[in-house]
Amino acid sequence: MVYITRREYFNAAHKLYNSAWSESKNLEVFGKCSNPNWHGHNYTLYVTVKGNPNPDTGFIVNLVDVSRITKELVIDKMDHRNLNLDVDFMKNIMPSTENVAIAIWNQLEPAIKNLGSQLHCIKICETENNFVEYFG
Amino acid sequence: MVYITRREYFNAAHKLYNSAWSESKNLEVFGKCSNPNWHGHNYTLYVTVKGNPNPDTGFIVNLVDVSRITKELVIDKMDHRNLNLDVDFMKNIMPSTENVAIAIWNQLEPAIKNLGSQLHCIKICETENNFVEYFG
Amino acid sequence: MVYITRREYFNAAHKLYNSAWSESKNLEVFGKCSNPNWHGHNYTLYVTVKGNPNPDTGFIVNLVDVSRITKELVIDKMDHRNLNLDVDFMKNIMPSTENVAIAIWNQLEPAIKNLGSQLHCIKICETENNFVEYFG
Amino acid sequence: MVYITRREYFNAAHKLYNSAWSESKNLEVFGKCSNPNWHGHNYTLYVTVKGNPNPDTGFIVNLVDVSRITKELVIDKMDHRNLNLDVDFMKNIMPSTENVAIAIWNQLEPAIKNLGSQLHCIKICETENNFVEYFG
Amino acid sequence: MVYITRREYFNAAHKLYNSAWSESKNLEVFGKCSNPNWHGHNYTLYVTVKGNPNPDTGFIVNLVDVSRITKELVIDKMDHRNLNLDVDFMKNIMPSTENVAIAIWNQLEPAIKNLGSQLHCIKICETENNFVEYFG
Amino acid sequence: MVYITRREYFNAAHKLYNSAWSESKNLEVFGKCSNPNWHGHNYTLYVTVKGNPNPDTGFIVNLVDVSRITKELVIDKMDHRNLNLDVDFMKNIMPSTENVAIAIWNQLEPAIKNLGSQLHCIKICETENNFVEYFG
Repeated sequence: MVYITRREYFNAAHKLYNSAWSESKNLEVFGKCSNPNWHGHNYTLYVTVKGNPNPDTGFIVNLVDVSRITKELVIDKMDHRNLNLDVDFMKNIMPSTENVAIAIWNQLEPAIKNLGSQLHCIKICETENNFVEYFG
Repeated sequence: MVYITRREYFNAAHKLYNSAWSESKNLEVFGKCSNPNWHGHNYTLYVTVKGNPNPDTGFIVNLVDVSRITKELVIDKMDHRNLNLDVDFMKNIMPSTENVAIAIWNQLEPAIKNLGSQLHCIKICETENNFVEYFG
Repeated sequence: MVYITRREYFNAAHKLYNSAWSESKNLEVFGKCSNPNWHGHNYTLYVTVKGNPNPDTGFIVNLVDVSRITKELVIDKMDHRNLNLDVDFMKNIMPSTENVAIAIWNQLEPAIKNLGSQLHCIKICETENNFVEYFG
Repeated sequence: MVYITRREYFNAAHKLYNSAWSESKNLEVFGKCSNPNWHGHNYTLYVTVKGNPNPDTGFIVNLVDVSRITKELVIDKMDHRNLNLDVDFMKNIMPSTENVAIAIWNQLEPAIKNLGSQLHCIKICETENNFVEYFG
Repeated sequence: MVYITRREYFNAAHKLYNSAWSESKNLEVFGKCSNPNWHGHNYTLYVTVKGNPNPDTGFIVNLVDVSRITKELVIDKMDHRNLNLDVDFMKNIMPSTENVAIAIWNQLEPAIKNLGSQLHCIKICETENNFVEYFG
Repeated sequence: MVYITRREYFNAAHKLYNSAWSESKNLEVFGKCSNPNWHGHNYTLYVTVKGNPNPDTGFIVNLVDVSRITKELVIDKMDHRNLNLDVDFMKNIMPSTENVAIAIWNQLEPAIKNLGSQLHCIKICETENNFVEYFG
């Protein structure tokens, strides 16, 4: 088994806010992340696929395909968007880094399988100081 | 002359949109940066001060003071905020990286002078792929 | 299971020196790391916690809590200190990167459990060229 | 079990080209990576070894030894070389990142065992945007 | 005056070899960089443009234009190429980092002027350990 | 004029402490940097040399020579050392980042001149958050 990873980017706005809660409870739990007028991040996304190298190419998957699928299914929908308002596959999902990672996994896993490969990990870095990994 | 630089961060939402223009002209000029529901960035700020080292301390300025001033006058007002809506010193200013750098210079220059030092450069990185430097 | 990581820093002095050995054996094994007058590093610490996202917050743990605990139990005790002389939980422990990682794990594991979460990994980078990971 | 990692570098030329295929099939599969006059990369290599710390040193392995072995068996043979033409242990192997990782594993695994340690992972970064991990 | 910088990449093969010299003199001066079968690098290119922000856009130049021009005139010609053999504007030029920077300046300077802006600096990083800056 | 830069490293211990002052004044001015048992850093050093490329080599200076001189005159004396106690050219100099930059300039400037080149800048990064530049 070999693991190969492709890095992609998207820049997005979001806020962490639970509408079932009072303003003050939101502030207590989410702090400045609950700012009503949004804030944003440069998100870095790492898509890791596993498999055995094809003897003709040396590839477990052609990264050009991984990159194209990720662009179509994730980056084009999230880049320069608002994660709470603009992203079809994030509807009614709190855009915590954890939930963003899970949503991207669900978005990419079947498409990677269609390539004949297997998704291993989605890693999302929200800032240089915090990141999430999800293995399905 | 010695130049010393302090790095700080803020994460903010913004959009590039000229309200004197049509939607389509905004899209043509600003592209996806004009998304009505905002997007955002992890901004990195470098504040460079110049001077001659004090013989007692070896410092041209105590970076603790530079950091405190930057926090009060810039970071606390921009971090986890919306640059178009929430920042008093950005009112009616298009939040391009260029204008953000100039606005931060104007905010910090007198305060650095009050420390007995001289502001040399404000550098703002909006993403890993683009940054602005302003020398006053 | 989702894994979330918080990055923290500390800058510290240390030396690698086994007092049961001769000076020359110390030099042979530890090289310039045995310099009697110490040397030091900018240590980067990654604390990884695992769990399932809370449906109300999208968090497996509030990183503000992880950061606060890490600051109290690790950073405040190690930052701008001497790892051989100043750190209560490193007494009589050779401050190799391996042992620093294990000591930080022992320091943080019960406190993370008290938050209702589970510590997964302590990663310490001593320089850009070497780092250690410990999973308990 | 503790995991320790050493980072090394090499800069090399290569191309991805299957001589059993037509020019146009090579171009279709490998794109600009099939350029007949080669291209190249700054490769970053991470060698991860696992074990238990020696009580006298706090080391699971002396990284000086890992670095020396890696230099002799890998870096001296690959750095400032052509991976298709110049490297004895890559003869007749397509120099995809996947295959480079596997070949370096095979080169280092017995030598790390001779040190009394155990190789855990070879990670190769070909660019900032793609890397491969191999665990044997 | 404000300075804005765009980062781009290219991966290329090259060698440093003066055909007027003996093999041994080449080896003495250029060391392993003279390897006959080439080696290569991930080059990072920083293009810095200076000017005054346009009041309608806040831009001194639209970075989309800088990026497009750089792609057409530099990246498309150098990426996944051999700098000694494949690049029209490097014909008969020793591909030292210094000369690569000067050649890219000559390639971009008139095109940036056509945008109504002024090229300020070309910075090329050949590895993490060496880079060149050229200001015309 | 072309500017070329070589990056080097050293890891060292130091403290900021003015022996003409009381303990409490030292603590007030230097904070935790005055810890009597030292602390330390991974210092990154950038040596920038300027000149015109030699037509035979494309070099303004052979970086191998810059690296060798820097190793002999700076790195070998500072790496894994105590900047207050062990470095001959730092005797009686407060090891602030500013003073370290100036001392390294004085150490390297004549040696770079002997190579037929001109030292342009010494840049020292003490942490990711603060650095100093000195131009003589």
